Amino acid sequence: MFSCYNKVIGLYSNLINNVKGFGTLVILGIDPGVATVGFGIINEKDGVPKPKRYGVISTPAGIRLALRLKQINDDVSQLIKTFKPDAIAVEELFFNTNQKTAVMVAHGRAAVILAGEEHGIPMFEYTPLQIKKAVAGYGRATKKQVMEMVRRLLLMEQIPKPDDAADALAIAICHARYTNSLLNIEGGGVCSTI
Amino acid sequence: MFSCYNKVIGLYSNLINNVKGFGTLVILGIDPGVATVGFGIINEKDGVPKPKRYGVISTPAGIRLALRLKQINDDVSQLIKTFKPDAIAVEELFFNTNQKTAVMVAHGRAAVILAGEEHGIPMFEYTPLQIKKAVAGYGRATKKQVMEMVRRLLLMEQIPKPDDAADALAIAICHARYTNSLLNIEGGGVCSTI
Repeated sequence: MFSCYNKVIGLYSNLINNVKGFGTLVILGIDPGVATVGFGIINEKDGVPKPKRYGVISTPAGIRLALRLKQINDDVSQLIKTFKPDAIAVEELFFNTNQKTAVMVAHGRAAVILAGEEHGIPMFEYTPLQIKKAVAGYGRATKKQVMEMVRRLLLMEQIPKPDDAADALAIAICHARYTNSLLNIEGGGVCSTI
Repeated sequence: MFSCYNKVIGLYSNLINNVKGFGTLVILGIDPGVATVGFGIINEKDGVPKPKRYGVISTPAGIRLALRLKQINDDVSQLIKTFKPDAIAVEELFFNTNQKTAVMVAHGRAAVILAGEEHGIPMFEYTPLQIKKAVAGYGRATKKQVMEMVRRLLLMEQIPKPDDAADALAIAICHARYTNSLLNIEGGGVCSTI
């Protein structure tokens, strides 16, 4: 594993491996936002998810919203070109938060969705409840429990950092599980395309 | 004036004139959304706004969100290429509405902003209060009063239709007024760039 920071695209990430085996599904999970967009790429084969790359796209607070959205759009586009995901899984917006925050996140989410659509990648969305169920087996699991399950499922020594990247890996794992077995997840079977 | 409906880009609009005189500022006003994006293009010279084109971009409800955002992004891009605006003015999100609606509008707004940024057009945002003050001279003006003032200011025989297009023209007029005189508007002087 190595860490890198790409100044050009403002993208900090950890590369685990970059080899895609035969019959492997590559999934890009996204935890949307404007200041920080978490991303997690996994290889999934025969129901076993393996981490490929994860990290965050950070945009500085002092620049115009339009520039931040452009940077997110460009960076996600760059991730797609580099890792060629078969699917993108994005977290649905959680509506119990502050409305101003929700509206900002929605802007960033649209920039991500547009990048996926420009490359013709199938996109799926999952609620926090679906993600918790798929990763920790329990819809009311705590954030810490979900993080720990991400670590275990991906056979990692440490919980991946930062949190937004771990969240994105959880979303990717969630999609892998829904794709493999729509029936094995309690209350599952609903896989929404964006 | 003639009306046209472009099936390719799902764009309904009314063309008033397509001539840009010397020293004229072309402003594209946008009333953001996902199902309907209102747009209004005006020529402004020596403080006098003239309507150039207005209409709505409509996206069908039955298609994926990603496709709708792509269509909005493409259509706004097409408007920019055709009318070469010097500035884009977009309504700020009004936070007292339903949160689900606000989040959807934010997605559409981001698609508009990204199109503007891709073409390097300066973008500005105005609150509903600023728009009402600039157009009707009164922050608590009714929607009907604002529409009527749009008609009068643009020397049109009828109030422009549909409403989203009239709203977009009001936003364009608002930007023209702020640009010409930051001090003449009560409570004005705040011109936020996006």
